[in-house]
Amino acid sequence: MTPKRFRCIKPEIRVLGVDDGIFVPHTKGTVDVVGVVYRGGYWLDGVMRTEVTVDGVDATEKIADMIKKSPHYEELRVVILNGITFAGFNVVDINKLFETVNLPVIAVAREKPDLEKIRKALENLPECERRWQAMESAGKIIEVHTRNTGEAVYTQIAGVSQEDAEKILKSTSTRSNVPEALRVAHIIASGLTRSEEKV
Amino acid sequence: MTPKRFRCIKPEIRVLGVDDGIFVPHTKGTVDVVGVVYRGGYWLDGVMRTEVTVDGVDATEKIADMIKKSPHYEELRVVILNGITFAGFNVVDINKLFETVNLPVIAVAREKPDLEKIRKALENLPECERRWQAMESAGKIIEVHTRNTGEAVYTQIAGVSQEDAEKILKSTSTRSNVPEALRVAHIIASGLTRSEEKV
Repeated sequence: MTPKRFRCIKPEIRVLGVDDGIFVPHTKGTVDVVGVVYRGGYWLDGVMRTEVTVDGVDATEKIADMIKKSPHYEELRVVILNGITFAGFNVVDINKLFETVNLPVIAVAREKPDLEKIRKALENLPECERRWQAMESAGKIIEVHTRNTGEAVYTQIAGVSQEDAEKILKSTSTRSNVPEALRVAHIIASGLTRSEEKV
Repeated sequence: MTPKRFRCIKPEIRVLGVDDGIFVPHTKGTVDVVGVVYRGGYWLDGVMRTEVTVDGVDATEKIADMIKKSPHYEELRVVILNGITFAGFNVVDINKLFETVNLPVIAVAREKPDLEKIRKALENLPECERRWQAMESAGKIIEVHTRNTGEAVYTQIAGVSQEDAEKILKSTSTRSNVPEALRVAHIIASGLTRSEEKV
């Protein structure tokens, strides 16, 4: 599929930020994944939820399903993920996600992913080839300065030009160096799972 | 306890908005209740969660526990509830909540509560006296115009003067006629419970 082209990035562009909750690594089970819809960098418009398997291979499918079933699907213009690994080493194939939901995908990490370390970790997991393929197909890691501060973020993109991706990240990172939808998805996913542990 | 006095209402005053999720009325079980911390009317700072019993009598205690156990407790200056009935007819005693968490409580409803209708519904429930007492002790219903539009909201207050309550509501209702923390608590609570139904 050809990348989406944006004629202009509207200040109120609907973006979905997706992050996972807190979990104990290497355990069996699932982790909550939360998607948050923002109008640009300012207003929360909606929330959705799914579960993915710890160290499983279902993250791409589960996140795609969550998006397509959401009442906000038609309004969304771009999906922003907190990195490409969820629930441990459940790797999201961002190109497949782009093709399935027909929306550009931007993965954003605060730290530069250490691919050699990840490759080694994947070697111990079932379907290691498939996971690595998803890692590789995410393409090159692009450093972006979303704000006028020193700290960069590291992105991988699917279905969108590097230029448009940078514009989207810059216009939606209103409160920190990541898009507000992603900052808030992190707070909600970790806040809710933290409360569950306490119950 | 004497009401809290606010020397000034800071634009970034930390408010907690509390709302319940979607549930089937008159069933047995619990409903998710979500608390959302906002800095004034603009930035989401945290999320917390508890569960209350449908048509039960534990809402006051559960919400107080959730607040006191939260890492955001010390920062909070005011609690804003979506009305005083949660999970059906689980009535929050706002004066008791104020005394327990030592924070002013403002209940905000978009529709004027029909006390006669509520009184009749309570008659069919156990501990009807206690519920009605909580309803009565919430005091008079005050109409507030939070924005320069025609629509009013209906509030009941505990531990705060009417003047301060109005100031807080006006400064935090940035996107709609209710405080942003409450609007977003509603979206999160209903969004998450809607997703759960689908799973």
